Amino acid sequence: SRSIDLAVIPGDGIGQEVVAEGLKVLAAALPQDVKLETKEYDFGARRYHATGETLTDADLDALKGHDAILLGAIGDPSVPSGVLERGFLLKLRFAFDHHVNLRPSKLLPGVATPLAGDPQIDFVVVREGTEGPYTGNGGTIRKGTEHEVATEVSVNTAFGVERVVRDAFARAQARPRKKLTLVHKNNVLTFAGHLWTNIFNQVAEEYPEVTTEYIHVDAATIYLVTQPERFDVIVTDNLFGDIITDLAAAVSGGIGVAASGNINPSGAYPSMFEPVHGSAPDIAGQGKADPTATVLSVALLLRHLGREAEATRIEDAVSADLAERGALPERTTAEIGDALAARVAG
Amino acid sequence: SRSIDLAVIPGDGIGQEVVAEGLKVLAAALPQDVKLETKEYDFGARRYHATGETLTDADLDALKGHDAILLGAIGDPSVPSGVLERGFLLKLRFAFDHHVNLRPSKLLPGVATPLAGDPQIDFVVVREGTEGPYTGNGGTIRKGTEHEVATEVSVNTAFGVERVVRDAFARAQARPRKKLTLVHKNNVLTFAGHLWTNIFNQVAEEYPEVTTEYIHVDAATIYLVTQPERFDVIVTDNLFGDIITDLAAAVSGGIGVAASGNINPSGAYPSMFEPVHGSAPDIAGQGKADPTATVLSVALLLRHLGREAEATRIEDAVSADLAERGALPERTTAEIGDALAARVAG
Ligand SMILES: CC(C)[C@H](C(=O)O)[C@@H](O)C(=O)O
Ligand SMILES: CC(C)[C@H](C(=O)O)[C@@H](O)C(=O)O
Repeated sequence: SRSIDLAVIPGDGIGQEVVAEGLKVLAAALPQDVKLETKEYDFGARRYHATGETLTDADLDALKGHDAILLGAIGDPSVPSGVLERGFLLKLRFAFDHHVNLRPSKLLPGVATPLAGDPQIDFVVVREGTEGPYTGNGGTIRKGTEHEVATEVSVNTAFGVERVVRDAFARAQARPRKKLTLVHKNNVLTFAGHLWTNIFNQVAEEYPEVTTEYIHVDAATIYLVTQPERFDVIVTDNLFGDIITDLAAAVSGGIGVAASGNINPSGAYPSMFEPVHGSAPDIAGQGKADPTATVLSVALLLRHLGREAEATRIEDAVSADLAERGALPERTTAEIGDALAARVAG
Repeated sequence: SRSIDLAVIPGDGIGQEVVAEGLKVLAAALPQDVKLETKEYDFGARRYHATGETLTDADLDALKGHDAILLGAIGDPSVPSGVLERGFLLKLRFAFDHHVNLRPSKLLPGVATPLAGDPQIDFVVVREGTEGPYTGNGGTIRKGTEHEVATEVSVNTAFGVERVVRDAFARAQARPRKKLTLVHKNNVLTFAGHLWTNIFNQVAEEYPEVTTEYIHVDAATIYLVTQPERFDVIVTDNLFGDIITDLAAAVSGGIGVAASGNINPSGAYPSMFEPVHGSAPDIAGQGKADPTATVLSVALLLRHLGREAEATRIEDAVSADLAERGALPERTTAEIGDALAARVAG
């Protein structure tokens, strides 16, 4: 298509700054004759304080019309924990059925890792995005008393598990190493564990070329720091995916470079792309934030829209920039964005 | 008391080998006039295959009479996932109300860590042991069909949370740094998260000297690899505790040296001590297993029984042994046990 119609949600804290750079690089990457239209939406803490709203039906209707969504970060200490997470971020993921939460981890040359030695890290986590303990099911009785009971219900369906497992197998099949690891805790969470394991093994039969393995989530955290080269594609539940992708980001260069996509592969709703990091209010407005994770999220966005060439050009620009970073003095958010845009336009 | 009456459960795989060394060091540590009685129980895969039983009411009655329990490892690939975990390990933790699951992490001099630099690691995780997603609540409908739905229910009570939070505050108060971190995911699991956060903040008022902080579980995995020195005592839910203590073990020298206690502080039932590692069937029976984690679990057991002096002597022996390991040729399980026993008797 000769045009891209993007919803832009800068959000809170450093979200504003990093999204500006993401758009700068996006504009530099697109061919002259592709028309880029963007519409900014003012979601997040400011809007919540002004109106009490996080994400209305009208908002969802408006967002629905775009080709994709670019998000900076949502969250502020002035808002009680959970309000924006459940009321905006998760509401959007669920409303637009973003069931494939894609989180690549690649340790690029020149990038510092907390791990000793010279770890080889290049894998992608396919995190389920619409089920598990994230459904908001559960409740509280006798709140605030010594007899309070609070429950959280993890909901897992064959429908929901199968589609994300299939997505992960297809991704594994398309990669050189063709390996897929299921991460769960099927020895304790036996109901959900049986469902995941069973479907995983069934779909595996259709992919004879893909090597499969199963690892408990606790053991997976060990391997992520002792043998990260073990992983190629990982498929896992919403909560386990949340946990291991933060660890994966930490070992592969930090959340400053971790990108993610909240994808609806059917295209029924626009997919959303965002850095894994949060709004970092402590450094907001100071030009200190690293826009790299947002720029890499823009690459995922372009790939999702079928623009593989531009996505690769952005990723190559980021690799080149990171490789030279050690030799450079500290740069501002905008300076990094400028450098990446220049390389991409290059 | 002038006697210790111990239930010993070697279990499966390397469990047999490491428990033998644990008992060797225990015998060496105890004063001559303390009578050590041990009774071995044959739980695990062998018994399950022979009788179909994992842990009967009669077993529980027998175990109840002991002062404490030392466990090697339970689990074997020949048994379907979940059978021994739910039918033995978790059944025992729940039956004996082992609500304080204590897991210290200390990086000792001379011990290899996958982390770069010279990380300072010395913290203890107090993992809740009888609630959360480990209760076995939940179920499956339409099993094996494309309409299967499987749920897992995390159950959290004010009673259960308060007692483990109080235990953790008392431990933090007794340590030089006096810092306690609550790890949860209260921005998504808002029902359970509210209960945990609220009780944590209430009990904090009784401990003005203890510095407190709250960290989401995903962020906690980042800090465990980028700033582990940040932690002193951590209190957390059963599942989050399972995950972060494996990671904690990995960064502080590996599961070869990670000990744990499943403690019932009231003394109504015997507490159980076990290495964090599993039965490792791949290296079982070859004298390759490191008994250190079991020996350190024996130290926790002795401390629990009020034998602080002997506990410290064992820990010092382990530190000394680990410090010299780099210079030594590879040793067998029994050789390491002999060396530790000799130091302890020293
Ligand atoms: C902010 C929070 C709701 C979110 C999550 O838990 O999914 C975040 O941690 C993430 O990983 O995108
Ligand atoms: C084997 C399993 C039931 C157990 C758990 O999940 O608690 C283990 O991982 C542990 O940490 O002791």
